[in-house]
Amino acid sequence: MPPRARRLDPVTGTLSPTPRSTLGRLRERGATDRAALYDVLDHGLVCHLALVRDGAPVVLPTGYGRIGDTLYVHGSSGARWLREGAVPVCATVTHLDGIVYARSVFHFSMNYRSAVAHGTARLVTEEPERTAALRAIVEHLAPGSWDHARPPTRRELAATAVLALDLDEASVKIRTGPPSDDPEDISPEVWAGVVPLTTTFGTPEPDPHVPADAPTPPHVTARTL
Amino acid sequence: MPPRARRLDPVTGTLSPTPRSTLGRLRERGATDRAALYDVLDHGLVCHLALVRDGAPVVLPTGYGRIGDTLYVHGSSGARWLREGAVPVCATVTHLDGIVYARSVFHFSMNYRSAVAHGTARLVTEEPERTAALRAIVEHLAPGSWDHARPPTRRELAATAVLALDLDEASVKIRTGPPSDDPEDISPEVWAGVVPLTTTFGTPEPDPHVPADAPTPPHVTARTL
Repeated sequence: MPPRARRLDPVTGTLSPTPRSTLGRLRERGATDRAALYDVLDHGLVCHLALVRDGAPVVLPTGYGRIGDTLYVHGSSGARWLREGAVPVCATVTHLDGIVYARSVFHFSMNYRSAVAHGTARLVTEEPERTAALRAIVEHLAPGSWDHARPPTRRELAATAVLALDLDEASVKIRTGPPSDDPEDISPEVWAGVVPLTTTFGTPEPDPHVPADAPTPPHVTARTL
Repeated sequence: MPPRARRLDPVTGTLSPTPRSTLGRLRERGATDRAALYDVLDHGLVCHLALVRDGAPVVLPTGYGRIGDTLYVHGSSGARWLREGAVPVCATVTHLDGIVYARSVFHFSMNYRSAVAHGTARLVTEEPERTAALRAIVEHLAPGSWDHARPPTRRELAATAVLALDLDEASVKIRTGPPSDDPEDISPEVWAGVVPLTTTFGTPEPDPHVPADAPTPPHVTARTL
Protein backbone atom coordinates (compact mmCIF):
# COMPACT_ATOMS: atom_id res chain seq x y z
CA MET A 1 0.00 0.00 0.00
CA PRO A 2 1.16 3.53 -0.70
CA PRO A 3 1.83 5.75 2.33
CA ARG A 4 -1.27 7.55 3.53
CA ALA A 5 -1.60 10.98 5.04
CA ARG A 6 -4.68 12.65 6.47
CA ARG A 7 -6.56 13.97 3.45
CA LEU A 8 -9.48 15.86 4.91
CA ASP A 9 -8.98 19.57 4.47
CA PRO A 10 -9.79 20.85 7.99
CA VAL A 11 -10.84 24.27 6.73
CA THR A 12 -13.39 23.44 4.07
CA GLY A 13 -14.18 19.88 4.95
CA THR A 14 -13.57 19.00 1.33
CA LEU A 15 -12.36 15.51 0.65
CA SER A 16 -9.04 15.64 -1.16
CA PRO A 17 -9.14 12.50 -3.26
CA THR A 18 -6.13 10.25 -3.42
CA PRO A 19 -5.39 8.38 -6.64
CA ARG A 20 -7.56 5.43 -5.64
CA SER A 21 -10.44 7.54 -4.36
CA THR A 22 -10.37 9.51 -7.60
CA LEU A 23 -12.38 6.99 -9.49
CA GLY A 24 -10.46 7.33 -12.70
CA ARG A 25 -13.36 7.59 -15.11
CA LEU A 26 -16.15 10.15 -15.33
CA ARG A 27 -14.57 12.57 -12.89
CA GLU A 28 -17.33 15.08 -13.54
CA ARG A 29 -19.59 12.86 -11.46
CA GLY A 30 -17.32 13.12 -8.45
CA ALA A 31 -18.81 15.22 -5.64
CA THR A 32 -15.96 15.62 -3.20
CA ASP A 33 -17.96 17.18 -0.46
CA ARG A 34 -18.02 15.82 3.07
CA ALA A 35 -21.69 16.69 3.59
CA ALA A 36 -22.53 14.58 0.54
CA LEU A 37 -20.46 11.72 1.99
CA TYR A 38 -22.33 11.86 5.29
CA ASP A 39 -25.63 12.08 3.43
CA VAL A 40 -24.97 8.95 1.37
CA LEU A 41 -23.71 7.01 4.39
CA ASP A 42 -26.44 8.12 6.80
CA HIS A 43 -29.28 7.23 4.41
CA GLY A 44 -27.92 3.78 3.56
CA LEU A 45 -28.62 0.58 5.43
CA VAL A 46 -26.04 -1.85 4.08
CA CYS A 47 -22.44 -1.30 3.07
CA HIS A 48 -20.48 -3.67 0.89
CA LEU A 49 -17.24 -4.34 2.73
CA ALA A 50 -14.30 -5.71 0.76
CA LEU A 51 -11.09 -7.22 2.02
CA VAL A 52 -8.30 -9.33 0.57
CA ARG A 53 -8.05 -12.99 1.50
CA ASP A 54 -5.27 -15.17 0.02
CA GLY A 55 -4.64 -12.50 -2.61
CA ALA A 56 -8.23 -12.40 -3.85
CA PRO A 57 -10.94 -9.90 -3.00
CA VAL A 58 -14.00 -10.82 -0.93
CA VAL A 59 -16.97 -8.48 -0.68
CA LEU A 60 -19.85 -9.01 1.73
CA PRO A 61 -22.90 -6.95 2.70
CA THR A 62 -23.04 -5.76 6.29
CA GLY A 63 -24.66 -3.17 8.52
CA TYR A 64 -22.66 -0.20 9.77
CA GLY A 65 -22.77 2.92 11.87
CA ARG A 66 -21.02 6.27 11.71
CA ILE A 67 -19.70 8.47 14.52
CA GLY A 68 -18.11 11.63 13.14
CA ASP A 69 -15.46 10.60 10.65
CA THR A 70 -15.35 6.94 11.62
CA LEU A 71 -17.36 4.11 10.10
CA TYR A 72 -17.96 1.07 12.31
CA VAL A 73 -18.86 -2.48 11.32
CA HIS A 74 -19.25 -5.54 13.50
CA GLY A 75 -19.31 -9.27 13.17
CA SER A 76 -18.63 -12.50 15.00
CA SER A 77 -15.41 -12.54 16.97
CA GLY A 78 -15.11 -16.09 15.62
CA ALA A 79 -14.48 -14.70 12.13
CA ARG A 80 -10.74 -14.78 11.57
CA TRP A 81 -10.50 -11.61 9.46
CA LEU A 82 -12.53 -9.59 11.97
CA ARG A 83 -10.32 -10.73 14.84
CA GLU A 84 -7.16 -9.76 12.96
CA GLY A 85 -8.03 -6.08 12.45
CA ALA A 86 -5.42 -3.80 10.84
CA VAL A 87 -6.36 -5.07 7.38
CA PRO A 88 -6.88 -2.93 4.28
CA VAL A 89 -10.60 -2.69 3.56
CA CYS A 90 -12.94 -0.80 1.28
CA ALA A 91 -16.53 0.01 2.26
CA THR A 92 -19.06 1.12 -0.35
CA VAL A 93 -22.62 2.33 0.18
CA THR A 94 -24.80 2.63 -2.92
CA HIS A 95 -28.27 4.10 -3.46
CA LEU A 96 -29.82 3.23 -6.80
CA ASP A 97 -32.19 6.06 -7.73
CA GLY A 98 -33.25 5.22 -11.28
CA ILE A 99 -32.63 3.45 -14.55
CA VAL A 100 -31.56 5.79 -17.34
CA TYR A 101 -33.06 4.82 -20.72
CA ALA A 102 -31.10 6.42 -23.57
CA ARG A 103 -31.53 6.54 -27.37
CA SER A 104 -28.36 4.48 -27.88
CA VAL A 105 -27.48 1.35 -25.92
CA PHE A 106 -24.07 2.94 -25.23
CA HIS A 107 -25.64 5.65 -23.04
CA PHE A 108 -27.87 3.46 -20.87
CA SER A 109 -26.96 4.20 -17.29
CA MET A 110 -28.18 4.43 -13.71
CA ASN A 111 -28.89 7.35 -11.47
CA TYR A 112 -27.21 6.62 -8.18
CA ARG A 113 -25.35 7.96 -5.18
CA SER A 114 -22.38 6.00 -3.89
CA ALA A 115 -19.77 6.51 -1.21
CA VAL A 116 -16.48 4.61 -1.25
CA ALA A 117 -14.14 4.64 1.77
CA HIS A 118 -10.66 3.09 1.75
CA GLY A 119 -8.37 2.48 4.67
CA THR A 120 -6.89 0.10 7.18
CA ALA A 121 -9.52 -1.28 9.53
CA ARG A 122 -8.73 -1.06 13.20
CA LEU A 123 -10.01 -3.61 15.74
CA VAL A 124 -11.85 -1.69 18.46
CA THR A 125 -10.98 -3.20 21.84
CA GLU A 126 -11.34 -0.38 24.35
CA GLU A 127 -14.32 1.18 26.12
CA PRO A 128 -16.13 3.51 25.78
CA GLU A 129 -15.52 3.38 22.00
CA ARG A 130 -16.61 -0.24 21.66
CA THR A 131 -20.05 0.21 23.20
CA ALA A 132 -20.51 3.54 21.41
CA ALA A 133 -19.74 1.81 18.11
CA LEU A 134 -22.22 -1.02 18.75
CA ARG A 135 -24.85 1.51 19.73
CA ALA A 136 -24.19 3.47 16.52
CA ILE A 137 -24.53 0.30 14.41
CA VAL A 138 -27.85 -0.71 16.04
CA GLU A 139 -29.22 2.85 15.98
CA HIS A 140 -28.27 3.21 12.32
CA LEU A 141 -30.14 0.00 11.46
CA ALA A 142 -33.09 0.60 13.75
CA PRO A 143 -33.24 4.09 15.31
CA GLY A 144 -34.53 4.18 18.89
CA SER A 145 -33.81 0.48 19.46
CA TRP A 146 -30.73 0.62 21.70
CA ASP A 147 -32.76 1.98 24.61
CA HIS A 148 -35.79 -0.22 23.83
CA ALA A 149 -34.03 -3.58 23.69
CA ARG A 150 -31.98 -5.50 26.26
CA PRO A 151 -28.34 -4.33 26.37
CA PRO A 152 -25.63 -6.83 25.45
CA THR A 153 -24.33 -9.20 28.11
CA ARG A 154 -20.63 -9.75 28.74
CA ARG A 155 -20.84 -13.02 26.82
CA GLU A 156 -22.54 -11.36 23.86
CA LEU A 157 -19.93 -8.60 23.84
CA ALA A 158 -17.16 -11.20 23.84
CA ALA A 159 -18.77 -12.83 20.80
CA THR A 160 -18.75 -9.55 18.88
CA ALA A 161 -15.81 -8.00 17.04
CA VAL A 162 -15.96 -4.30 16.12
CA LEU A 163 -13.90 -2.73 13.36
CA ALA A 164 -13.34 0.99 12.77
CA LEU A 165 -12.54 2.61 9.41
CA ASP A 166 -11.47 6.26 9.36
CA LEU A 167 -13.28 8.21 6.65
CA ASP A 168 -10.21 10.22 5.69
CA GLU A 169 -9.87 8.63 2.26
CA ALA A 170 -13.31 8.59 0.74
CA SER A 171 -15.17 9.72 -2.33
CA VAL A 172 -18.76 10.23 -3.40
CA LYS A 173 -20.14 9.75 -6.89
CA ILE A 174 -23.59 10.95 -7.85
CA ARG A 175 -25.42 10.71 -11.17
CA THR A 176 -28.77 12.44 -11.61
CA GLY A 177 -30.92 13.61 -14.49
CA PRO A 178 -31.82 12.46 -18.00
CA PRO A 179 -29.68 10.39 -20.38
CA SER A 180 -26.51 11.91 -21.89
CA ASP A 181 -27.35 11.06 -25.48
CA ASP A 182 -25.37 12.25 -28.47
CA PRO A 183 -27.29 15.16 -30.08
CA GLU A 184 -27.61 13.33 -33.41
CA ASP A 185 -29.48 10.47 -31.71
CA ILE A 186 -32.23 12.70 -30.33
CA SER A 187 -35.41 12.10 -32.32
CA PRO A 188 -39.11 12.45 -31.49
CA GLU A 189 -39.55 8.78 -32.47
CA VAL A 190 -37.33 7.27 -29.78
CA TRP A 191 -38.39 7.40 -26.13
CA ALA A 192 -35.76 8.17 -23.55
CA GLY A 193 -35.92 9.09 -19.90
CA VAL A 194 -35.53 7.84 -16.38
CA VAL A 195 -37.50 5.19 -14.50
CA PRO A 196 -37.08 6.14 -10.84
CA LEU A 197 -36.49 3.57 -8.12
CA THR A 198 -37.67 4.01 -4.55
CA THR A 199 -37.07 1.89 -1.46
CA THR A 200 -39.72 2.15 1.23
CA PHE A 201 -40.54 0.55 4.56
CA GLY A 202 -43.74 -1.48 4.71
CA THR A 203 -46.11 -2.21 7.59
CA PRO A 204 -44.24 -3.65 10.59
CA GLU A 205 -44.79 -7.40 11.03
CA PRO A 206 -44.88 -8.28 14.75
CA ASP A 207 -43.07 -11.41 15.90
CA PRO A 208 -45.52 -14.31 16.51
CA HIS A 209 -44.93 -14.01 20.29
CA VAL A 210 -46.04 -10.37 20.41
CA PRO A 211 -49.65 -10.19 21.76
CA ALA A 212 -52.18 -9.28 19.05
CA ASP A 213 -53.30 -6.16 20.94
CA ALA A 214 -49.78 -4.88 21.69
CA PRO A 215 -49.15 -1.54 20.02
CA THR A 216 -46.16 -1.17 17.71
CA PRO A 217 -43.89 1.36 19.41
CA PRO A 218 -43.44 4.83 17.86
CA HIS A 219 -39.73 4.33 17.07
CA VAL A 220 -40.78 1.46 14.78
CA THR A 221 -43.88 2.99 13.19
CA ALA A 222 -42.01 6.27 12.58
CA ARG A 223 -39.34 4.49 10.52
CA THR A 224 -38.68 6.19 7.21
CA LEU A 225 -35.79 6.29 4.78
CA MET B 1 -4.67 -18.02 -4.94
CA PRO B 2 -5.45 -21.66 -4.27
CA PRO B 3 -5.89 -23.89 -7.33
CA ARG B 4 -9.46 -23.91 -8.59
CA ALA B 5 -11.40 -26.72 -10.15
CA ARG B 6 -14.87 -26.64 -11.65
CA ARG B 7 -17.19 -26.92 -8.68
CA LEU B 8 -20.65 -27.11 -10.18
CA ASP B 9 -22.04 -30.61 -9.84
CA PRO B 10 -23.32 -31.23 -13.39
CA VAL B 11 -25.93 -33.71 -12.23
CA THR B 12 -27.75 -31.82 -9.54
CA GLY B 13 -26.66 -28.28 -10.31
CA THR B 14 -25.80 -27.89 -6.64
CA LEU B 15 -23.05 -25.43 -5.84
CA SER B 16 -20.25 -27.18 -4.06
CA PRO B 17 -18.84 -24.45 -1.87
CA THR B 18 -15.11 -23.95 -1.64
CA PRO B 19 -13.62 -22.69 1.62
CA ARG B 20 -14.06 -19.05 0.65
CA SER B 21 -17.58 -19.46 -0.69
CA THR B 22 -18.55 -21.23 2.52
CA LEU B 23 -19.07 -18.03 4.38
CA GLY B 24 -17.56 -19.22 7.62
CA ARG B 25 -20.26 -18.04 9.99
CA LEU B 26 -23.94 -18.89 10.18
CA ARG B 27 -23.74 -21.78 7.76
CA GLU B 28 -27.41 -22.59 8.37
CA ARG B 29 -28.24 -19.53 6.29
CA GLY B 30 -26.37 -20.89 3.28
CA ALA B 31 -28.63 -21.98 0.45
CA THR B 32 -26.33 -23.73 -1.95
CA ASP B 33 -28.81 -24.11 -4.70
CA ARG B 34 -28.16 -22.91 -8.23
CA ALA B 35 -31.79 -21.85 -8.77
CA ALA B 36 -31.50 -19.60 -5.73
CA LEU B 37 -28.28 -18.14 -7.14
CA TYR B 38 -29.94 -17.34 -10.47
CA ASP B 39 -32.93 -15.89 -8.66
CA VAL B 40 -30.84 -13.50 -6.56
CA LEU B 41 -28.74 -12.44 -9.56
CA ASP B 42 -31.64 -12.07 -12.00
CA HIS B 43 -33.70 -9.89 -9.66
CA GLY B 44 -30.83 -7.57 -8.78
CA LEU B 45 -29.84 -4.42 -10.65
CA VAL B 46 -26.41 -3.59 -9.26
CA CYS B 47 -23.56 -5.83 -8.21
CA HIS B 48 -20.71 -4.73 -5.99
CA LEU B 49 -17.55 -5.75 -7.80
CA ALA B 50 -14.34 -6.01 -5.77
CA LEU B 51 -10.78 -6.28 -6.99
CA VAL B 52 -7.34 -5.82 -5.50
CA ARG B 53 -5.29 -2.76 -6.41
CA ASP B 54 -1.82 -2.23 -4.90
CA GLY B 55 -2.63 -4.86 -2.27
CA ALA B 56 -5.80 -3.18 -1.08
CA PRO B 57 -9.41 -4.01 -1.97
CA VAL B 58 -11.57 -1.71 -4.07
CA VAL B 59 -15.32 -2.28 -4.36
CA LEU B 60 -17.52 -0.39 -6.80
CA PRO B 61 -21.18 -0.69 -7.82
CA THR B 62 -21.85 -1.66 -11.43
CA GLY B 63 -24.50 -3.13 -13.68
CA TYR B 64 -24.21 -6.70 -14.92
CA GLY B 65 -25.82 -9.36 -17.03
CA ARG B 66 -25.96 -13.15 -16.85
CA ILE B 67 -25.85 -15.71 -19.65
CA GLY B 68 -26.05 -19.24 -18.27
CA ASP B 69 -23.27 -19.66 -15.75
CA THR B 70 -21.35 -16.52 -16.71
CA LEU B 71 -21.72 -13.06 -15.20
CA TYR B 72 -20.72 -10.12 -17.41
CA VAL B 73 -19.77 -6.59 -16.42
CA HIS B 74 -18.57 -3.76 -18.59
CA GLY B 75 -16.78 -0.47 -18.25
CA SER B 76 -14.59 1.99 -20.05
CA SER B 77 -11.72 0.44 -21.99
CA GLY B 78 -9.72 3.38 -20.61
CA ALA B 79 -9.92 1.86 -17.10
CA ARG B 80 -6.63 0.08 -16.48
CA TRP B 81 -8.02 -2.79 -14.40
CA LEU B 82 -10.74 -3.54 -16.96
CA ARG B 83 -8.21 -3.65 -19.80
CA GLU B 84 -5.99 -6.03 -17.88
CA GLY B 85 -8.57 -8.79 -17.40
CA ALA B 86 -7.45 -12.08 -15.77
CA VAL B 87 -7.66 -10.51 -12.31
CA PRO B 88 -9.21 -12.10 -9.22
CA VAL B 89 -12.56 -10.47 -8.55
CA CYS B 90 -15.57 -10.95 -6.30
CA ALA B 91 -19.07 -9.89 -7.32
CA THR B 92 -21.84 -9.60 -4.75
CA VAL B 93 -25.54 -8.89 -5.33
CA THR B 94 -27.63 -8.06 -2.26
CA HIS B 95 -31.37 -7.63 -1.76
CA LEU B 96 -32.34 -6.11 1.56
CA ASP B 97 -35.81 -7.39 2.46
CA GLY B 98 -36.36 -6.12 5.99
CA ILE B 99 -34.99 -4.87 9.28
CA VAL B 100 -35.25 -7.43 12.09
CA TYR B 101 -36.11 -5.83 15.45
CA ALA B 102 -35.22 -8.18 18.31
CA ARG B 103 -35.71 -8.04 22.11
CA SER B 104 -31.94 -7.83 22.65
CA VAL B 105 -29.61 -5.55 20.71
CA PHE B 106 -27.42 -8.61 20.06
CA HIS B 107 -30.09 -10.20 17.86
CA PHE B 108 -30.93 -7.21 15.67
CA SER B 109 -30.47 -8.32 12.09
CA MET B 110 -31.60 -7.93 8.50
CA ASN B 111 -33.63 -10.12 6.23
CA TYR B 112 -31.76 -10.34 2.96
CA ARG B 113 -30.77 -12.42 -0.01
CA SER B 114 -27.21 -12.18 -1.27
CA ALA B 115 -25.16 -13.93 -3.92
CA VAL B 116 -21.36 -13.89 -3.84
CA ALA B 117 -19.30 -15.09 -6.82
CA HIS B 118 -15.51 -15.46 -6.76
CA GLY B 119 -13.17 -16.06 -9.65
CA THR B 120 -10.69 -14.73 -12.13
CA ALA B 121 -12.26 -12.23 -14.50
CA ARG B 122 -11.61 -12.83 -18.19
CA LEU B 123 -11.45 -9.98 -20.70
CA VAL B 124 -13.96 -10.76 -23.47
CA THR B 125 -12.41 -9.88 -26.84
CA GLU B 126 -14.10 -12.17 -29.36
CA GLU B 127 -17.43 -12.06 -31.15
CA PRO B 128 -20.15 -13.19 -30.86
CA GLU B 129 -19.60 -13.38 -27.06
CA ARG B 130 -18.78 -9.68 -26.74
CA THR B 131 -21.98 -8.38 -28.31
CA ALA B 132 -24.05 -11.04 -26.54
CA ALA B 133 -22.56 -9.91 -23.23
CA LEU B 134 -23.30 -6.23 -23.88
CA ARG B 135 -26.82 -7.14 -24.90
CA ALA B 136 -27.26 -9.16 -21.68
CA ILE B 137 -26.03 -6.23 -19.57
CA VAL B 138 -28.39 -3.72 -21.24
CA GLU B 139 -31.34 -6.14 -21.21
CA HIS B 140 -30.74 -6.90 -17.53
CA LEU B 141 -30.80 -3.20 -16.67
CA ALA B 142 -33.64 -2.27 -19.01
CA PRO B 143 -35.47 -5.22 -20.60
CA GLY B 144 -36.58 -4.66 -24.18
CA SER B 145 -34.12 -1.83 -24.73
CA TRP B 146 -31.49 -3.46 -26.94
CA ASP B 147 -33.89 -3.66 -29.89
CA HIS B 148 -35.44 -0.25 -29.14
CA ALA B 149 -32.25 1.82 -28.96
CA ARG B 150 -29.50 2.48 -31.49
CA PRO B 151 -26.91 -0.33 -31.57
CA PRO B 152 -23.31 0.49 -30.60
CA THR B 153 -20.98 1.92 -33.23
CA ARG B 154 -17.49 0.55 -33.83
CA ARG B 155 -16.08 3.53 -31.89
CA GLU B 156 -18.42 2.91 -28.94
CA LEU B 157 -17.51 -0.78 -28.92
CA ALA B 158 -13.82 0.13 -28.87
CA ALA B 159 -14.44 2.33 -25.84
CA THR B 160 -16.08 -0.53 -23.94
CA ALA B 161 -14.32 -3.31 -22.06
CA VAL B 162 -16.28 -6.45 -21.17
CA LEU B 163 -15.30 -8.84 -18.39
CA ALA B 164 -16.65 -12.35 -17.79
CA LEU B 165 -16.80 -14.14 -14.44
CA ASP B 166 -17.67 -17.83 -14.39
CA LEU B 167 -20.25 -18.65 -11.72
CA ASP B 168 -18.58 -21.90 -10.72
CA GLU B 169 -17.53 -20.68 -7.28
CA ALA B 170 -20.52 -18.93 -5.80
CA SER B 171 -22.75 -18.99 -2.76
CA VAL B 172 -26.13 -17.66 -1.73
CA LYS B 173 -27.13 -16.54 1.74
CA ILE B 174 -30.75 -15.89 2.66
CA ARG B 175 -32.26 -14.76 5.97
CA THR B 176 -36.03 -14.62 6.36
CA GLY B 177 -38.51 -14.57 9.22
CA PRO B 178 -38.78 -13.12 12.72
CA PRO B 179 -35.92 -12.36 15.12
CA SER B 180 -33.93 -15.21 16.68
CA ASP B 181 -34.29 -14.05 20.26
CA ASP B 182 -33.20 -16.06 23.26
CA PRO B 183 -36.32 -17.63 24.85
CA GLU B 184 -35.73 -15.85 28.18
CA ASP B 185 -35.93 -12.45 26.46
CA ILE B 186 -39.39 -13.04 25.05
CA SER B 187 -41.90 -10.94 26.98
CA PRO B 188 -45.27 -9.40 26.12
CA GLU B 189 -43.86 -6.00 27.09
CA VAL B 190 -41.15 -5.80 24.44
CA TRP B 191 -42.09 -5.40 20.78
CA ALA B 192 -40.14 -7.39 18.22
CA GLY B 193 -40.71 -8.12 14.58
CA VAL B 194 -39.71 -7.23 11.05
CA VAL B 195 -40.10 -3.97 9.17
CA PRO B 196 -40.16 -5.03 5.50
CA LEU B 197 -38.33 -3.09 2.80
CA THR B 198 -39.53 -2.90 -0.79
CA THR B 199 -37.92 -1.36 -3.85
CA THR B 200 -40.31 -0.29 -6.59
CA PHE B 201 -40.20 1.50 -9.92
CA GLY B 202 -41.96 4.85 -10.10
CA THR B 203 -43.63 6.63 -13.00
CA PRO B 204 -41.26 6.96 -15.99
CA GLU B 205 -39.88 10.49 -16.41
CA PRO B 206 -39.47 11.29 -20.14
CA ASP B 207 -36.33 13.11 -21.25
CA PRO B 208 -37.03 16.85 -21.88
CA HIS B 209 -36.61 16.28 -25.65
CA VAL B 210 -39.39 13.68 -25.80
CA PRO B 211 -42.58 15.31 -27.19
CA ALA B 212 -45.26 15.79 -24.52
CA ASP B 213 -47.76 13.62 -26.44
CA ALA B 214 -45.32 10.76 -27.14
CA PRO B 215 -46.45 7.53 -25.48
CA THR B 216 -44.08 5.75 -23.13
CA PRO B 217 -43.32 2.40 -24.82
CA PRO B 218 -44.66 -0.83 -23.27
CA HIS B 219 -41.21 -2.22 -22.44
CA VAL B 220 -40.73 0.80 -20.15
CA THR B 221 -44.22 1.00 -18.60
CA ALA B 222 -44.20 -2.76 -17.97
CA ARG B 223 -41.04 -2.55 -15.89
CA THR B 224 -41.34 -4.35 -12.57
CA LEU B 225 -38.87 -5.84 -10.10
